[in-house]
Amino acid sequence: MKAVCLLSGGMDSCVTAAIAREMGYEIYAITFDYGQRNRKEIESAMKVAAALQAKEHKIIKADLRTFGKSALTDNIEVPEFENGRNEIPPTYVPARNTIFLSYGLAYAETIDADAVFIGANAVDYSGYPDCRKEYIEAYQKVADLGTKRGAEGKPIKIIAPIIDMSKGEIVKKGVELNAPFEHTWSCYRSGDKACGKCDSCVLRLKGFEEAGVKDPIEYE
Amino acid sequence: MKAVCLLSGGMDSCVTAAIAREMGYEIYAITFDYGQRNRKEIESAMKVAAALQAKEHKIIKADLRTFGKSALTDNIEVPEFENGRNEIPPTYVPARNTIFLSYGLAYAETIDADAVFIGANAVDYSGYPDCRKEYIEAYQKVADLGTKRGAEGKPIKIIAPIIDMSKGEIVKKGVELNAPFEHTWSCYRSGDKACGKCDSCVLRLKGFEEAGVKDPIEYE
Repeated sequence: MKAVCLLSGGMDSCVTAAIAREMGYEIYAITFDYGQRNRKEIESAMKVAAALQAKEHKIIKADLRTFGKSALTDNIEVPEFENGRNEIPPTYVPARNTIFLSYGLAYAETIDADAVFIGANAVDYSGYPDCRKEYIEAYQKVADLGTKRGAEGKPIKIIAPIIDMSKGEIVKKGVELNAPFEHTWSCYRSGDKACGKCDSCVLRLKGFEEAGVKDPIEYE
Repeated sequence: MKAVCLLSGGMDSCVTAAIAREMGYEIYAITFDYGQRNRKEIESAMKVAAALQAKEHKIIKADLRTFGKSALTDNIEVPEFENGRNEIPPTYVPARNTIFLSYGLAYAETIDADAVFIGANAVDYSGYPDCRKEYIEAYQKVADLGTKRGAEGKPIKIIAPIIDMSKGEIVKKGVELNAPFEHTWSCYRSGDKACGKCDSCVLRLKGFEEAGVKDPIEYE
């Protein structure tokens, strides 16, 4: 049983892939080099894929800088975490998960995989529209109707196993499954150590705190 | 009013973009360099974009050869047209329209365009699952739910204006709108002149015949 696992280098996709492995899937990892300012993410994804014994790992060049408009790809400042903020933050990359899932679907179809795993998470999410459950359900329909496998009655499943978990639950799950947290990188900024202050760091640290586990990576 | 128009270099997307222009949209063209064996398609798309006075034309490198498994990207033979064949042919590229629409969506969101036009056609289609109306409708849901604009109540419309037309109707519409057919290229093979024998050529020639118009391009 094969599954394509989207790996970003962060902890959510790492735990997601560990869940796929636990479910008995062979992991075919895919990571996007989308012009992200933080190049460390790709290195981290490679280490995570190796630690999880992925059968294959494709690094796809998908240059989203062509379109710009995100703090993750452009020279726009990455903001510090703000509690209760409810607008979509500047770190949103237009249609990013849609593009990633589409490549995942193409990959799954060519290797005859049964599923695509994505580490989208709606609970502690930063306000990204493409991390919600309804979005994943809508994408499933596209996978059902837009592929040869779907047309032949063997649709590729889009699985987002941590979508409803809190960050604390994600950390606990990862510890239980021996997920290689030490290789993950979540910080939006590009220092040698994680900043501890951006949305992504703050949510990660909160998760480890909730789980009562020490985060193995270093912070500034 | 801005619209992103997917341009393949072929006649369907050319007529689709001409319809967008007729509807009053400014055209922002996007073409994919996806490792297609036939490099002429990209040149043709550039000529079509210029003839339709596109405001901008993005050529996106999206290397689908990484995944392989299609006669359009790999060394698999392009078959001759067969009447009544009802399996999905080897020219199917896994999840191609899904990947293309996803980039179209990202582009639309960054330039604040109201629509993405795609020249999908279900009538004389070669059996591709991602050219059907239900597929486009499913994709609209993804656009509604997966983008910032959608979340803010101004969803980007996915418009497939020729989806129900026969090839003859597409040619007639194109003639009416002065679509630059002379710059288009439909052949799946890579000769100097179109082969006249592959699915794509046969359907195109049938369309011109039905419309009672001479195809301005040269055939072998």
